[in-house]
Amino acid sequence: MSPKITVELLRQLRQAMRNSKCITEPIQAYIVPSGDAHQSEYIAPCDCRREFISGFNGSAGTAIVTEQHAALWTDGRYFLQACQQMDNNWTLMKMGLKETPSQEDWLISVLPENSKVGVDPWIIAADQWKNMSKALSSAGHSLVAVQNNLIDAIWEDRPPRPSTKLISLGLKYTGLTWQDKITALRGKMAERKISWFVVTALDEIAWLFNLRGSDIEYNPVFFAYAFIGISSIKLFVDSKRLLDQAVRQHLELDSPSKPDLTVQCFPYESVFTELEVVCAALAPKDKMWICDKASCALTQVIPKAHRSAIPYTPLCLAKAVKNPTEIHGMKMAHIKDAVALCELFAWLEKEIPKGTVTEISAADKAEELRSQQKDFVGLSFPTISSVGPNGAIIHYRPLPETNRTLSLNEVYLIDSGAQYTDGTTDVTRTVHFGTPSDYEKECFTNVLKGHIAVSAAVFPNGTKGHLLDSFARAALWDSGLDYLHGTGHGVGCFLNVHEGPCGISYKTFADEPLEAGMIVSDEPGYYEDGSFGIRLENVVLVVPAKTRYNYRNRGSLTFEPLTLVPIQLKMINTDLLTQKERDWVNDYHTKCRETIGAELERQGRKEALDWLIRETQSIV
Amino acid sequence: MSPKITVELLRQLRQAMRNSKCITEPIQAYIVPSGDAHQSEYIAPCDCRREFISGFNGSAGTAIVTEQHAALWTDGRYFLQACQQMDNNWTLMKMGLKETPSQEDWLISVLPENSKVGVDPWIIAADQWKNMSKALSSAGHSLVAVQNNLIDAIWEDRPPRPSTKLISLGLKYTGLTWQDKITALRGKMAERKISWFVVTALDEIAWLFNLRGSDIEYNPVFFAYAFIGISSIKLFVDSKRLLDQAVRQHLELDSPSKPDLTVQCFPYESVFTELEVVCAALAPKDKMWICDKASCALTQVIPKAHRSAIPYTPLCLAKAVKNPTEIHGMKMAHIKDAVALCELFAWLEKEIPKGTVTEISAADKAEELRSQQKDFVGLSFPTISSVGPNGAIIHYRPLPETNRTLSLNEVYLIDSGAQYTDGTTDVTRTVHFGTPSDYEKECFTNVLKGHIAVSAAVFPNGTKGHLLDSFARAALWDSGLDYLHGTGHGVGCFLNVHEGPCGISYKTFADEPLEAGMIVSDEPGYYEDGSFGIRLENVVLVVPAKTRYNYRNRGSLTFEPLTLVPIQLKMINTDLLTQKERDWVNDYHTKCRETIGAELERQGRKEALDWLIRETQSIV
Repeated sequence: MSPKITVELLRQLRQAMRNSKCITEPIQAYIVPSGDAHQSEYIAPCDCRREFISGFNGSAGTAIVTEQHAALWTDGRYFLQACQQMDNNWTLMKMGLKETPSQEDWLISVLPENSKVGVDPWIIAADQWKNMSKALSSAGHSLVAVQNNLIDAIWEDRPPRPSTKLISLGLKYTGLTWQDKITALRGKMAERKISWFVVTALDEIAWLFNLRGSDIEYNPVFFAYAFIGISSIKLFVDSKRLLDQAVRQHLELDSPSKPDLTVQCFPYESVFTELEVVCAALAPKDKMWICDKASCALTQVIPKAHRSAIPYTPLCLAKAVKNPTEIHGMKMAHIKDAVALCELFAWLEKEIPKGTVTEISAADKAEELRSQQKDFVGLSFPTISSVGPNGAIIHYRPLPETNRTLSLNEVYLIDSGAQYTDGTTDVTRTVHFGTPSDYEKECFTNVLKGHIAVSAAVFPNGTKGHLLDSFARAALWDSGLDYLHGTGHGVGCFLNVHEGPCGISYKTFADEPLEAGMIVSDEPGYYEDGSFGIRLENVVLVVPAKTRYNYRNRGSLTFEPLTLVPIQLKMINTDLLTQKERDWVNDYHTKCRETIGAELERQGRKEALDWLIRETQSIV
Repeated sequence: MSPKITVELLRQLRQAMRNSKCITEPIQAYIVPSGDAHQSEYIAPCDCRREFISGFNGSAGTAIVTEQHAALWTDGRYFLQACQQMDNNWTLMKMGLKETPSQEDWLISVLPENSKVGVDPWIIAADQWKNMSKALSSAGHSLVAVQNNLIDAIWEDRPPRPSTKLISLGLKYTGLTWQDKITALRGKMAERKISWFVVTALDEIAWLFNLRGSDIEYNPVFFAYAFIGISSIKLFVDSKRLLDQAVRQHLELDSPSKPDLTVQCFPYESVFTELEVVCAALAPKDKMWICDKASCALTQVIPKAHRSAIPYTPLCLAKAVKNPTEIHGMKMAHIKDAVALCELFAWLEKEIPKGTVTEISAADKAEELRSQQKDFVGLSFPTISSVGPNGAIIHYRPLPETNRTLSLNEVYLIDSGAQYTDGTTDVTRTVHFGTPSDYEKECFTNVLKGHIAVSAAVFPNGTKGHLLDSFARAALWDSGLDYLHGTGHGVGCFLNVHEGPCGISYKTFADEPLEAGMIVSDEPGYYEDGSFGIRLENVVLVVPAKTRYNYRNRGSLTFEPLTLVPIQLKMINTDLLTQKERDWVNDYHTKCRETIGAELERQGRKEALDWLIRETQSIV
């Protein structure tokens, strides 16, 4: 991976920062956040502005360019990758390390007095704007909204915004019609005396309307906004998409069943002016919900007196708690996914000794095997297929110039997942095709102990995920080891592989209590820079737990693994496991053998079945 | 315990809320927080306003009185106690339960439109004012500062503010002179370009000046404020206290060694006007530190442009990280304290069968035995001495009307501690003098497992205490049990038994990373309403841990118990312990026997020594 040469781009950007054609008054710094106007984590090519200017293409990071400096903040998953992708015009700011300044502190330390710091108000979230603006003001600077994006101004061949075909999902997949979802949402709005809800998150809109698109790779969403009123529904979407008969029928555009369930459609670009129109017509007591992570541009249209900014929306929570149909779909998707992975590992075992399998060809094989499964739509994120030292790059993606050959001598880590019409998967396994070293086994076993500690944890109803994070780390901490990422994220159902509002992390923001029906990942790891990476990830469902007692009738919860792919026994130092942990591994493998074995048999995939049976033997 | 009758008091308060002699404009609600003008947790009798109006005398709680309602918010430690102390004019608001509204939400739900909510600006912290004010404004109400406290207006026999003798501590106890501490503080101020620091917390002032008082029972502090400038020191304290020659000498009042270490003294009451004087003389760029937990009254004197509100102060952090002299003192204090407790338990064993020992007489005996130890000053908090069902009242304090006799049939919980000139102690043991039931043993053992999980935890440098809280609960959670309080608090050195900025709790606010030299408590529990209470508390010192590896050179930490009092073996179901846990118990008891045994021998306390030896036998 060679770094992107950014000398000329930075020169052009700095020119734009002073150019009255681009900007009403010169700015001394320009912030380029990661996201799009919907604050999406994964973004369309036309929105990859931070990558365009810096070269760094990880999923999280913010670039800031001043007259003298160019700096990029990202988290521990991406330190190595960012180092490799950026040229030496850029300074990497390693978030989470004590010595790393915050963006605000850094700006204050490098800016001349009374500086103006610019940012595109569509790209920055309202809460970030507020914090940044406050910090800069307190030091005598100011944050200003730059209406025309300065990256777009210098980006000559910027791709157009995608507008892919929409597909509508029936009750069989969703469990609830979009009309039911709107009615439930309006119930919550009425409880809080809210007259409008401005929906800006793409996955919330997709979930609410039971529609999917493919505007953003890996995330089956489409560019849209929606305003849900107590008796009206406004949907902002590229109008070409509504020529499709199936979509028209699904949304009842031509024959609405009820007046208050009539969808009014507007062009995507008219969201700003239409929000102005709606706001102008508000009664004095009317309140509008908008997520505090929505864009600053849209948030500020709503007069403060009418604005009720919420840290996460009722749709976000409703979407996170899967209904029985969604849970069933997720289970089915995970069975199909496990079939593909069992086949992959059986194939790898056979092929690797020939020396012909690379990180890329292994990832391609995984995709090919998944694509043979029913209702396969695509991958849910770029496959992380990494050998040896590449495994220590937490969100590594193999490229021709980094591509390593799988061998009998190095640890192999594969983190991959798919979108099926009935569910979304995300699974990581770390394996060795030869003989792992004692140290590799020790590290793997400590990661496994952490994985089990979370998966088997019993905790009271109402517990937030961050209270479980240390369970995943305790065994590593005992040895002086750790990993610099959270332990788990919410997973959508045929939606984004990362979703809120719950998760398992030492970070405590945006962490709603876990409840039965939520689905999260459990993925501790250990990464030794330059040597190897280990991660063990299952997607798990929050389920009620049976306990001997029931303090204050609160009830207890635990996790049920949805991912059913064997954990490589060869990597485990069983001496380090307690009896309880050994029992957990054996129970898990029995479940893999029974459930996935039956499906492999049904699909007539004999080799993978043999592999599964061998890999799920009991340990003592 | 019979509830306080509050009909007449509430009538008078409501009258005052409308009376133009008390208040410039009528208010529809009045908030009575717990604290004093220094936001102290323990307060002097003249400041017990919330207790005066409601009857509830726990250490935490806020009363709100409206025309129609009177409600009191407190946390899980105090639910039972508050129920018993308040008459039915009051509604108990159980904080931490899902169904309990916040004070803001409750006010909004009960107040008529455009209401005014009053509060004494000296008693409410600036950050609380801000949050409350914002929430009320958003609902059309307003928070107003009521300059004359309305409780004081109706409190006929309110005691005067205490002004006790000050004692000065030498280097032998403090390890650093006050001049050294001021110089170090000024270094931190210079780093951040701060010209003044307004110190309002009583323990910070006591620690900074190496002075102690006894204005507040259990907390060796004195009423004072201090302004520390880059070259001047202003101390606000009752001037009578400065007639004492030893104090004058200690503070070098009559012959300052250096101009910038000259202490200017002002009357306590002049803090407001003197702060106005200092603020009027500020240069445009001058910044003043004040804790965001300082009073709203004082905070608002500082113009916003000069105010730098910080969540915890550098003194708070410096005080939390004990220096070698303080650590040595704390260890000595804990040895003396353990001697007294071994004697107590040996005495209880002998006396209880006679049926003459009560909760109160046991607490008195504990105090008597502690008072025989060198440098004893007083208790560090009211002794919680509780038998059977009283043990379930988490912060129970025996009163004549609740006083129960210790017997061979009920669990006994004693949570007690003392102030010695060299250190502060806080220890809880739960014991049975007859035969505990299997269920009691099961619960005790789960609490013990939690205690050990925290005490033996190894974690990276920089870890915040809240990440350890779940370790204390995991064994209880497995059985469906839990406790509704945090796991640990910071402990001062001959200072407040509860201090910030670190602790171990599921609550994540004001939680600075743990570092070597900090001292916290480790005190999980389990409480069965109406039956029994279990708590197991040691004070522990954060120390560097040796680990096999050292990820990114971060270093690791663990805890060393300072409390060395045997844990009753009879209460343990050893079958529920892992081998590691059994080893921990045995190692701990060996340390108790060696360290406390030697001291008991030196002091010639033979009976207690025999008891100690018997109670520290190995378990298998």
